[in-house]
Amino acid sequence: MTGWIAVAGLGPGDEALVTPEVAAALAQATDVVGYIPYVARIAPRPGLVLHPSDNRVELDRARAALDMAAAGRRVVIVSSGDPGVFAMASALFEALEDLPQAAHPDIRILPGITAMLAAAARAGAPLGHDFCAINLSDNLKPFEMVEHRLRHAARGDFAMAFYNPRSKARPHQFARVLELLREECGPDRLIIFARAVSTPDEALRVVTLAEAAPEMADMRTVVIVGNFATRRVGRWVYTPRSAAGSATTP
Amino acid sequence: MTGWIAVAGLGPGDEALVTPEVAAALAQATDVVGYIPYVARIAPRPGLVLHPSDNRVELDRARAALDMAAAGRRVVIVSSGDPGVFAMASALFEALEDLPQAAHPDIRILPGITAMLAAAARAGAPLGHDFCAINLSDNLKPFEMVEHRLRHAARGDFAMAFYNPRSKARPHQFARVLELLREECGPDRLIIFARAVSTPDEALRVVTLAEAAPEMADMRTVVIVGNFATRRVGRWVYTPRSAAGSATTP
Repeated sequence: MTGWIAVAGLGPGDEALVTPEVAAALAQATDVVGYIPYVARIAPRPGLVLHPSDNRVELDRARAALDMAAAGRRVVIVSSGDPGVFAMASALFEALEDLPQAAHPDIRILPGITAMLAAAARAGAPLGHDFCAINLSDNLKPFEMVEHRLRHAARGDFAMAFYNPRSKARPHQFARVLELLREECGPDRLIIFARAVSTPDEALRVVTLAEAAPEMADMRTVVIVGNFATRRVGRWVYTPRSAAGSATTP
Repeated sequence: MTGWIAVAGLGPGDEALVTPEVAAALAQATDVVGYIPYVARIAPRPGLVLHPSDNRVELDRARAALDMAAAGRRVVIVSSGDPGVFAMASALFEALEDLPQAAHPDIRILPGITAMLAAAARAGAPLGHDFCAINLSDNLKPFEMVEHRLRHAARGDFAMAFYNPRSKARPHQFARVLELLREECGPDRLIIFARAVSTPDEALRVVTLAEAAPEMADMRTVVIVGNFATRRVGRWVYTPRSAAGSATTP
């Protein structure tokens, strides 16, 4: 029996946002590997072994999946959202570097609805023009790098989506991010706090940078900051397709 | 009968990448509105009226959808990929600005697998660290703005995904983009040309910036440029989760 690995994105939470491609891979799997709350979304069935693991053990999890595939198992590594956006796909390729190429198993990356797209859809279309995605966690990079990227994103007049904006371990850093954004973008720029979109805990809040407070975000929140032209229409927030009137038109 | 509008993302092409949420909206629709090749993906059925329209008439299409919803129709506006990423959602909100809020219909934005996520998944995980998405078309912004954003994206060491990289109307501009990227990122940076991912015309090519040529892209191509740390492992390309070794660590 030939083993394989699929790294699959489960989307933001609602089962109606799981692609048929991912559902088919899960139906063929012998093993599902992933962070505890994501594996908890997979329905148990005979012949399927669930391997939930803790946070911050991504490389161990990837190595375990490679071992299982080498033993002929059909392994799905599950991520929330999209597996290629601040999730398990990179960790798998890092682990793959330890194997000779002849030992690489069959691997497929199965895309999913990443959190910023679900959040943007709920708010309107704040990512309707050029934008960037930044992981605010400093687990894997110095906070100075985060600040450096924020300044370039602001000066390029990109809309921005932030993943992992705030944790108990570093509550002061998101306050610093808001301060930097107020300096670069001014007080009237719109900011969206989208928590747990498509789950029963969903909450959406739109304020200006002047009104934004660090407590509006937690680790289940995606934060979206508009560009110069982002504005409200009724209960919606959107970024026009045209860059006319941008502050940074050279 | 109460009309509504859903702006739905059909994903990059493969029906296995259409979410169940989008499939359900299409099943309830009385009318489907969109650019000709996207409407062509919708299976005809009794009671469903298809309204294909040409490119570059996004605002007219949005106004037609608003009129139909006001008349009690259940309208799905279809976009390729995700409707909030360089697609129809922003155009709908632009058109909505002409209506008093009391006349706003029920609107839902239904996310989809945007082209850069499908392309990244096929290549490996090139967007596994901070990244940005830039529409290279100058239909709606001056090319100087594109250059300005490219420089900030490069100096912030973002990976980059480019939509609409090249058209017959402006063949020289993508050559200029490659030149600018070589200046900013050096000749060895990896660049991915992902054409028509998940369709029968799919083609994937990974080269360095030194090897990249404008003819490698057309309007069905998404281009992804890695960051400083992006590298190959076997047949894959990925960006490590860690920023260690980044050229621009301050």
